[in-house]
Amino acid sequence: MKLADLPTPCLVLERTILRRNITRMAEAVGRHNLPLRPHMKTAKSIDVARLALEGQPGGVTVSTLAEAEYFAAHGITDILYAVGITPQKLDQVVKLNAAGAQVMVVTDDPDMADTIAAHPVSPRTLIEIDTGESRGGVAPDDDILLTIAVRLGPRLAGVMTHAGHSYSGRSIDDMVRIAEDERHGVTHAAERLRAAGHAVPIVSTGSSPTARHAVQLDGVTEVRAGVYMFGDLFQAEIGTHGLDDIAVTVLSSIIGRRAGRLLIDAGGLALSKDRSTEKAPKDYGFGLVLDIAGSPLGGTIVRRVYQEHGVIETDQTQTMWASIGERVRIAPNHICMTAAAHDRYYVIDGDDNVIAVWPRVNGW
Amino acid sequence: MKLADLPTPCLVLERTILRRNITRMAEAVGRHNLPLRPHMKTAKSIDVARLALEGQPGGVTVSTLAEAEYFAAHGITDILYAVGITPQKLDQVVKLNAAGAQVMVVTDDPDMADTIAAHPVSPRTLIEIDTGESRGGVAPDDDILLTIAVRLGPRLAGVMTHAGHSYSGRSIDDMVRIAEDERHGVTHAAERLRAAGHAVPIVSTGSSPTARHAVQLDGVTEVRAGVYMFGDLFQAEIGTHGLDDIAVTVLSSIIGRRAGRLLIDAGGLALSKDRSTEKAPKDYGFGLVLDIAGSPLGGTIVRRVYQEHGVIETDQTQTMWASIGERVRIAPNHICMTAAAHDRYYVIDGDDNVIAVWPRVNGW
Repeated sequence: MKLADLPTPCLVLERTILRRNITRMAEAVGRHNLPLRPHMKTAKSIDVARLALEGQPGGVTVSTLAEAEYFAAHGITDILYAVGITPQKLDQVVKLNAAGAQVMVVTDDPDMADTIAAHPVSPRTLIEIDTGESRGGVAPDDDILLTIAVRLGPRLAGVMTHAGHSYSGRSIDDMVRIAEDERHGVTHAAERLRAAGHAVPIVSTGSSPTARHAVQLDGVTEVRAGVYMFGDLFQAEIGTHGLDDIAVTVLSSIIGRRAGRLLIDAGGLALSKDRSTEKAPKDYGFGLVLDIAGSPLGGTIVRRVYQEHGVIETDQTQTMWASIGERVRIAPNHICMTAAAHDRYYVIDGDDNVIAVWPRVNGW
Repeated sequence: MKLADLPTPCLVLERTILRRNITRMAEAVGRHNLPLRPHMKTAKSIDVARLALEGQPGGVTVSTLAEAEYFAAHGITDILYAVGITPQKLDQVVKLNAAGAQVMVVTDDPDMADTIAAHPVSPRTLIEIDTGESRGGVAPDDDILLTIAVRLGPRLAGVMTHAGHSYSGRSIDDMVRIAEDERHGVTHAAERLRAAGHAVPIVSTGSSPTARHAVQLDGVTEVRAGVYMFGDLFQAEIGTHGLDDIAVTVLSSIIGRRAGRLLIDAGGLALSKDRSTEKAPKDYGFGLVLDIAGSPLGGTIVRRVYQEHGVIETDQTQTMWASIGERVRIAPNHICMTAAAHDRYYVIDGDDNVIAVWPRVNGW
């Protein structure tokens, strides 16, 4: 099958770019002699996981229990479920682990630590540390940290943090500073726990920007990152990679041509309504328009979206080249959001031949 | 199964509210002695379609060919695919129709009209009219209208329009005016075609706000609408229904409680990143927080979302009531977007018993 034969809208994955992104991140983390625990929340694909795990110990990070079940079923057993655990989800994890997986969980809550400890066969647990994102996690200096550790007892496996506030950074200097805050916060928490007599084998950090730009990661034992595999317009703007490192785009057909605008069949569902580039240096609307071969069409963007319609505003001349059914590709603002509407990747590698179809595990 | 036992995040559908919304719209359209061709782009469910079709002729509108295939497989054959057709999709429609469906298509393009006419067994086709939305469609007075009609020849089945700009209205008066623009534009186009000798059996209008508030619909033969079945915060703000008419919400678990904020397991994927209420009278962030029984918690909203985390900002006191794993429900900004991340509805009817699970047909 050729690219031009695919039903639209759909995801196109360029394997060469994916491999290059994976190699670059492995090298960035390898500089610190650290392993990568790839976060599969973006790709949600065993085929992508296998590439991301080349040369790594083999553990992954996931954002849903659907991912945990899927990867365990495909033989990846060392899994960190990196979203705060609840009693109900703990039961699901226990079942998964009884069937052979080794899913670790995360908490920042003393009551939940009690629930975990009270479970007869509870999973290994990391305490979530807030190193500046202000989402989940306890502050490194908060005494609740020690309370949670005591309550977890032997289930305590370490600490983890996610410097998601690196997405607010706008320069390499910002990323270097945030990466050091992340490292310092989580290792400080680990030291406090060790000083109180706890073993802390795992000290886990990560976000694609900080993983890429950290100057030193002393005290850290593993790095997590996910979006780096595919890249997107937002990550290109904040310096995680270049604009030509975006591995996944949305293939779309032109479905209308009116004065000053082209309509495409990729709208708010196929592209997502993510507007993360709105406050970035360049606002890409709902995505950057590329030709079918992947080259930008003079900076043209998707200006508006409806459920199944995207609107590309153009000058009158530009609409002349288009014919109904002609294909374009859209580079997404935020690939984690965009990819989630699609159930598969159509994989190409250097030309317009579709060499594979890789499924995704969506939902919960 | 009880509501509190469901895995989170998931969609909860209150059948009583759904039925009420369906009855109200049927009455609104019935005032004009017109049939409704429900738009299934929001619900994407045969179970919902069956309710929406009670007392109606039986035709539906769809936004994807995946929906067309799904509804045809469930015995609904009279289908309008209301997104501009392409040559490739025309082939798919022809196959569907050869298998027993009667899918009609839409175009606003003379070249595409040629392609349709050249097909040996092409589907009945409506010409899309732009009555002010500035998305797809030809202007009612544009001579391209007559060109397309001539090229379509006997495949011409009528005209259709969608007053999507009603979403910019902020009062009943606005809706009444936009509904009249919509009616006048599409019937004017129909009259021009008839004056040129074409039969125009179908004159189709519709958007939930204009369908609800149109004062007269002379010359129109059918009305399309979809979001009215479920409702959402945005539709409540623009007067399509009340805040207590939202039939579908996202059930979510509390996964963290920090000073001044609660974390839930419904984030940008489970809620969508739609921010349609941002410019509405009240900005609901990423959704309005309800208790598990469906009552608002004092106007508390989901302020921020990450892929799998939602952040509810609260005062310090409010976080005290929460326990990890406790359930809340989130009323969505835009249910068409929110529902699309989920593969099923858990249906309740007046209490917390889950009486059915209704699947959805997502994707393309």
